[in-house]
Amino acid sequence: MTLLFENCTVLPMTAERSEANCFTGWVGVEGRRIALVTAEASEAERWRKEHPDVRVVDGCGGVLMPGLVNTHCHMAMTLERSYADDMALMTWLNDCIWPFESHLTDDDIRTGALLGAAEMLLGGTTSVVDMYWSEEAVFDAVEESGMRALLCCSYLDSRLEAFDRDLPALLEKCAGSTRIRAGLAPHAAYTCSTENLRRGVAACERYDIPMTTHISETLDEQRIIGERYGMSPVACLDSLGLLNDRLIAAHCVHLSDDDRRILRERGVHVAHCPTSNMKISSGIAPIERLRTEGVNCTVGTDGPSSNNDLDMWEELRNASFLQKVATMDPCAVPAYELLRMATVNGAAAIGHAGELGVVREGALADLVLLDTRKPHWHPRHDVVANVAYCAKAADVTMVVVDGEPVVEEGRLLHADLPALFEKSETIVRRIAALR
Amino acid sequence: MTLLFENCTVLPMTAERSEANCFTGWVGVEGRRIALVTAEASEAERWRKEHPDVRVVDGCGGVLMPGLVNTHCHMAMTLERSYADDMALMTWLNDCIWPFESHLTDDDIRTGALLGAAEMLLGGTTSVVDMYWSEEAVFDAVEESGMRALLCCSYLDSRLEAFDRDLPALLEKCAGSTRIRAGLAPHAAYTCSTENLRRGVAACERYDIPMTTHISETLDEQRIIGERYGMSPVACLDSLGLLNDRLIAAHCVHLSDDDRRILRERGVHVAHCPTSNMKISSGIAPIERLRTEGVNCTVGTDGPSSNNDLDMWEELRNASFLQKVATMDPCAVPAYELLRMATVNGAAAIGHAGELGVVREGALADLVLLDTRKPHWHPRHDVVANVAYCAKAADVTMVVVDGEPVVEEGRLLHADLPALFEKSETIVRRIAALR
Repeated sequence: MTLLFENCTVLPMTAERSEANCFTGWVGVEGRRIALVTAEASEAERWRKEHPDVRVVDGCGGVLMPGLVNTHCHMAMTLERSYADDMALMTWLNDCIWPFESHLTDDDIRTGALLGAAEMLLGGTTSVVDMYWSEEAVFDAVEESGMRALLCCSYLDSRLEAFDRDLPALLEKCAGSTRIRAGLAPHAAYTCSTENLRRGVAACERYDIPMTTHISETLDEQRIIGERYGMSPVACLDSLGLLNDRLIAAHCVHLSDDDRRILRERGVHVAHCPTSNMKISSGIAPIERLRTEGVNCTVGTDGPSSNNDLDMWEELRNASFLQKVATMDPCAVPAYELLRMATVNGAAAIGHAGELGVVREGALADLVLLDTRKPHWHPRHDVVANVAYCAKAADVTMVVVDGEPVVEEGRLLHADLPALFEKSETIVRRIAALR
Repeated sequence: MTLLFENCTVLPMTAERSEANCFTGWVGVEGRRIALVTAEASEAERWRKEHPDVRVVDGCGGVLMPGLVNTHCHMAMTLERSYADDMALMTWLNDCIWPFESHLTDDDIRTGALLGAAEMLLGGTTSVVDMYWSEEAVFDAVEESGMRALLCCSYLDSRLEAFDRDLPALLEKCAGSTRIRAGLAPHAAYTCSTENLRRGVAACERYDIPMTTHISETLDEQRIIGERYGMSPVACLDSLGLLNDRLIAAHCVHLSDDDRRILRERGVHVAHCPTSNMKISSGIAPIERLRTEGVNCTVGTDGPSSNNDLDMWEELRNASFLQKVATMDPCAVPAYELLRMATVNGAAAIGHAGELGVVREGALADLVLLDTRKPHWHPRHDVVANVAYCAKAADVTMVVVDGEPVVEEGRLLHADLPALFEKSETIVRRIAALR
């Protein structure tokens, strides 16, 4: 499809620093990529004539920007949204989450992932890093939704199907996809033996795929790993060869100076999940320090049972405001840097550095159009601050992924939402009856 | 107007504890008040026949609940939304906020307040406590918008017009209103002399009106008051007679054990503003302690220049999640208590205990209908948690204040938004040209 957005404030996210280079202009899409970015009416007109079949989209004065990248999620856990809140962590896991999950079929996982993809796309999140088992079922959901994803097959010592079943099945499916890539996800240092962690490293090398894992989420994890190995989770995983520039490390809440240095030196991408860290009382990650020390910091929602939604705009606000109060520095994680975390940095984390998360000719066309004709967008002193600190998921009117429209006028093109809602309720009722 | 809501999940907020008494049912409104609350079809049918002119509203399976009460705001500061972000507090105030505000006319303040009221009503906030100068101009905006408000004339030593000009003018206007009440607002202990604080107490007694003020927002304030009076801001204001059950104390971030005891013993209502406290690095208020010790805790957005929006749903999430991470207790401020803060507790703070913030026969009809036909509302394990942790401003489809619809199908009935946006931009351009 060939598209031409006109009458937009373009937020390209190509500037390195906060002098954001917004402009009123035109953006053209041809095939999977952005083919035109211009502030010149004459250039737009020439491009339009060269593409007689182009569909012209009126941006209505709104903001056109890169789609957001959610670097840590468990999409199927939408089925556990608001299932178990306001509980101590181990009660939550032992009495609620794990028993519920033990009843999930692959088809349930597909339904949960579809629900998650629907929520994310409607809110302008175009890429996701997912970590769960049966990722081949998640693949089907993501493929159907039109979203971009890095799907990582999760394993722990008591569940090792990722190696022989999930990952081969997922790799086969991904071979035919331009939008979906496969990865591996050891659950964490405290749930995987050193043998199984090393096995993960070997598998990533063999298949040439990235990895994601949970690192230093809670103080309990620090204690367990300290007792077991006499070192921090970061040092432990580094000693086993997991830390490199193809690893996305979720959480990283409790870090020593050495831990931060190691993460930086290895080029690890950090997926900061502030809402989850707040809601389950994990702690406050030292994101401002990591960021200023040169670590690539990105943002993730985590799963909906510890959030309770997949709203990257709220996640962004938390990523900035929590740092401001924790460091007592109102300049921490300023607006433009915050937007970089969810666009440019997220794209780099999923292996698309420079060709995603920006509005630039030649980049992959993952675009979000925001309707700014609402009170919370006015007045417009500063578009970057408006987007970072005021934009809402419901402001998203159009979403393009890999050059294809997936949301139009705030509605999903590839989903039957009432049927999806009914299916999710049926799953919940079935599992409730089993317990 | 007579209204009958049908096909709703009613969240009445009348239960004391978290066993929230939601039910599928009908709610009737007659004049300014709720006249019917029932789960019985036969009762609803009888009421409908007794009211042949009733307008029946199909809730489409959504949630019907009390409108939210925002207990701390500076509505006119919408004009400074995203005007000056990511700055140290004193730079922000001295170089940006105060110079900008020095150019505001009463008509500008009215426009800013209209913009704030529009944003709040669209998001389901039906009552607001506002603190600013020229509240008689804010009155005109609130009256036009259809919102409920407690408007408090602000003063400090260098600006004392509240006593002789603003308050008399506002009281005269309020005399004819069922929705709008007047109050007085000394800015803070550090900006008002003891003489002017005592003068405020006397004025509140004379006119029989409530008061609001900023208390213990920052460590700087603690230090200044400590140096000036040898005590905490709470103790200082108590010694001057300001603390009682008709005072709304905004912020209360830095409190000693004694401060908390005094607030509780005096029956002071606390307006917790977590987003503002986070964004300008004020600190984390001990809300979980205050709440469990018996202080009436409510929620406020503060002004849009330190937030940057007036979204009470995001404010609620921050009020809970920030406590959970600060106390390292995931059970802190659980979902139902959180909703009480923004409904029942807020209503008590503005002098409407028992007759507002609840869906109960005889209560004032301030109601919000939420559209739940969206992915982030599914599945529905727990309606209370869904509302507290997932609801969005944009889910609000209908809002009734004092028995009158003000929002229908997500649109304001009494506002010309494009004209309002243009007017706010004109003000900003005019002030920019002056500087």
